[in-house]
Amino acid sequence: MTGDRILDRTLAGRMTSAAEAAEQIGPGETVGFSGFTGAGHPKAVPAALAARMRAAHADGEEFRVQAWTGASTAPDLDGVLAEAHGLSKRLPYNGDPLLRQQINSGEVEYVDVHLSHVAQHSWFGFYGDLDVAVVEVAAILPNGLLVPTSSVGNNKTWLENADRVILEVNSWQPRGFEGFHDIYYGTRLPPQRAPIQLTTPMQRIGDPYLRVDPEKVVAVVATDHPDRNSPLRPLDEDSRAMADLLVDFLRHEVRNDRLHPSLLPLQAGVGNVANAVLAGLQDAEFEHLTAYTETIQDGLLDLLDSGKLIGVSSTSFGLSEEGARRFNDDIHHYKGRILLRPQEISNHPEVVRRLGLIAINGMVEADIYGNVNSTHVAGSAIVNGIGGSGDFARNAYLNFFVSPSTAKNGAISSIVPFVSHVDHTEHDVQVVITEQGLADLRGLSPRARARKIIDRCAHPDYRDRLADYFERAQRERPDAMHTPHLLGEALSWHRSYLETGHM
Amino acid sequence: MTGDRILDRTLAGRMTSAAEAAEQIGPGETVGFSGFTGAGHPKAVPAALAARMRAAHADGEEFRVQAWTGASTAPDLDGVLAEAHGLSKRLPYNGDPLLRQQINSGEVEYVDVHLSHVAQHSWFGFYGDLDVAVVEVAAILPNGLLVPTSSVGNNKTWLENADRVILEVNSWQPRGFEGFHDIYYGTRLPPQRAPIQLTTPMQRIGDPYLRVDPEKVVAVVATDHPDRNSPLRPLDEDSRAMADLLVDFLRHEVRNDRLHPSLLPLQAGVGNVANAVLAGLQDAEFEHLTAYTETIQDGLLDLLDSGKLIGVSSTSFGLSEEGARRFNDDIHHYKGRILLRPQEISNHPEVVRRLGLIAINGMVEADIYGNVNSTHVAGSAIVNGIGGSGDFARNAYLNFFVSPSTAKNGAISSIVPFVSHVDHTEHDVQVVITEQGLADLRGLSPRARARKIIDRCAHPDYRDRLADYFERAQRERPDAMHTPHLLGEALSWHRSYLETGHM
Repeated sequence: MTGDRILDRTLAGRMTSAAEAAEQIGPGETVGFSGFTGAGHPKAVPAALAARMRAAHADGEEFRVQAWTGASTAPDLDGVLAEAHGLSKRLPYNGDPLLRQQINSGEVEYVDVHLSHVAQHSWFGFYGDLDVAVVEVAAILPNGLLVPTSSVGNNKTWLENADRVILEVNSWQPRGFEGFHDIYYGTRLPPQRAPIQLTTPMQRIGDPYLRVDPEKVVAVVATDHPDRNSPLRPLDEDSRAMADLLVDFLRHEVRNDRLHPSLLPLQAGVGNVANAVLAGLQDAEFEHLTAYTETIQDGLLDLLDSGKLIGVSSTSFGLSEEGARRFNDDIHHYKGRILLRPQEISNHPEVVRRLGLIAINGMVEADIYGNVNSTHVAGSAIVNGIGGSGDFARNAYLNFFVSPSTAKNGAISSIVPFVSHVDHTEHDVQVVITEQGLADLRGLSPRARARKIIDRCAHPDYRDRLADYFERAQRERPDAMHTPHLLGEALSWHRSYLETGHM
Repeated sequence: MTGDRILDRTLAGRMTSAAEAAEQIGPGETVGFSGFTGAGHPKAVPAALAARMRAAHADGEEFRVQAWTGASTAPDLDGVLAEAHGLSKRLPYNGDPLLRQQINSGEVEYVDVHLSHVAQHSWFGFYGDLDVAVVEVAAILPNGLLVPTSSVGNNKTWLENADRVILEVNSWQPRGFEGFHDIYYGTRLPPQRAPIQLTTPMQRIGDPYLRVDPEKVVAVVATDHPDRNSPLRPLDEDSRAMADLLVDFLRHEVRNDRLHPSLLPLQAGVGNVANAVLAGLQDAEFEHLTAYTETIQDGLLDLLDSGKLIGVSSTSFGLSEEGARRFNDDIHHYKGRILLRPQEISNHPEVVRRLGLIAINGMVEADIYGNVNSTHVAGSAIVNGIGGSGDFARNAYLNFFVSPSTAKNGAISSIVPFVSHVDHTEHDVQVVITEQGLADLRGLSPRARARKIIDRCAHPDYRDRLADYFERAQRERPDAMHTPHLLGEALSWHRSYLETGHM
């Protein structure tokens, strides 16, 4: 292939195999990979790099790299590098099971950063130098401009900051992606920063193309591989119940004049509940909806198709195989209704607050006072990471944290006396939803929140014990009633889970 | 008095005593008071209201109000109302000792909100209706415009949203305050919000005056009372040590090209350490400094006087008596070099991130992984509140959390295995400083942070025990090494403090 994909002669002259491209990456280097929620990551060079690493290790040599990405990638990136024991450090978000295991075994250092912070902290020099960028594109235009693919993530930053650049041109990605991106090149370092002049989700403020200094491009590799598109799981009863509660609450806010009937731009995390909420909106009365989010799931395509949603701004896709086929086969249908931006813009506190998002995110657990743990099991083992949830929730118009009230067939309560890790503080959490009910925490003191969360959200099997904890905590220190706790018991539910398999 | 203070005839006609004005406030109502860090709060009506409450209570009647402010006020507001048992609920930040006691005894509900969120959550209708605003001003102009005093806080919002307005015209406040304020009237509700076009700390984007609908003004009260101006405490050795570490670190960042020699706009919380840092900057080589902060302490006046600081934007003053005298006596000297804004602008995430602040805030404690507790003693008793620390730290270019390594003559370590409350998560905290040393946490995994915090920041009396906890936690769950903890011991230091008076 070069065809309509590689139209710049200089860069066409750098075409090479993945194995040769991988030779450009040395032990101990820092590599910035494209990729966000399994979309738009390089598909060939990581495997070739992993092969080099295995060979080096077989010769008794050290060969690991630091890897920076947009967010989670796929087995053909994080998976193969982890399998080769080739990662020393990784940021900012991981969803790969093997890499997770290596992080939790202490083999890989993991830096769990807000997704809106990654690019700027890299510009600021807070993470050190970036040696190589490995970025997937859909095409290289005659003037050297790059057509991005199914995610933008931190690609602009990696291309700008890396000493060397490797491009993967993936012909699985539709050539028709040209015109779907809005790459904002107006960022500066303080004190030269200007307002980001974005006032509606679908407004263009940048260019459709990524730029790269052709001098830095050391290899161009042709690929033809799909994104990681996971199968859609059928909606379960709990997810539907939570989605119904959420949609009813939006109705309630509209009735009380706190929301317009077209709501405000939606942000929905990835997963079952988000999909159920989107399905719920399909059947609801709200029209002319918009979304300003970080991942486009199947449910958002459905809402676009039905005309309920007039546009979605995101930084990536996170589709099922069927959803990806639907989008790729009919890409022109979505033009002008989907816009992909760099993650420092899709998740930017300035824009999130201005647009006034409705932010819907999952959680591991919440405590009775409304602190939310999104990242850790029993305080120590990382699940995935905070992702964009902090960017969105802290700055949203309205935020929701959603989880079934129990996990592992009831062995774990997701409402606990004291969360084992805090990702969203009591100051930031507005509405908690489980399949049991919804707790609107806005404007409440900690004790008023506790009553509501216990009554509305806890599973009946755990409710009395939570109420008992709360009652005894209030008696324990009558001069410390703002946030009553029994410090000897606060984490005992998690301890019991570790020791007995049951909270 | 009316003199040059009350120049609007309609409003001059509403002049009355504080006692009569207080008749306008009924039991169960919600009152928005001016006031931020003991500056600019009403001085007479609260005491008159407290007298009404005591009388009602003596007759066996209920009389409490919900009170909303800018931040902390003074004995003549929170103090007198608490003494009269007249508060049912209070937001967003309190520093009054008696009110703190009533919050911690469960008598008063306290809602501890980010200071940048208060105004907008009130506009959104999240807190319910505001019945009365009681706002101090320096003068009422012939056209009814109001000259604000030593704090702006949420005054614009209270004046706009309240059904009734009581104005206190305080002749202790310099008449020369006219022209020191920048009241931004460009805020809208989403989806009508526009960028805040502020790109340098001293830029004007609003009006010098507050507006009020004269129809709503039910009383105008003349007062002549000082702000709460606390004595300056001499700098202690620990504060100096921490300030030296911080200033040296700024030098280090300049040398490494991560900061310009004029630094970036400074934000410094209130207190000894902040004052020591400002004193340290007085003697350092940095010139042409600016500040974008929420409180102007004496140290900032010193830096203005010496010419080191070219301007400071804030929402309030927090001066010593001597500092207030210095400012009031020579107010024209500071014109154009001090600007007071509404707190939704002084603390706005959009502006804080754009300007790239250097944010310096105190803390109660940090844990070995860099989670910070700014608000609670042993998990349950509130100290003051989160204030603006979350607005600033989350969005700053660089943030510092600063505290002596021990408290209560060594009985308490401010570095603990697990903080008893989280206000700033591990994702948000960059640099921790105690008098022992500085831990730069940027780009580190949790375990790398732990090693640094224990080595650099912990007091020698506690260092070995922290290191021992960390070592044993790593051995305890080898498959959960991302953030190693011993859940049975995590909060035992706080428990021990409660039980024995010593950690």
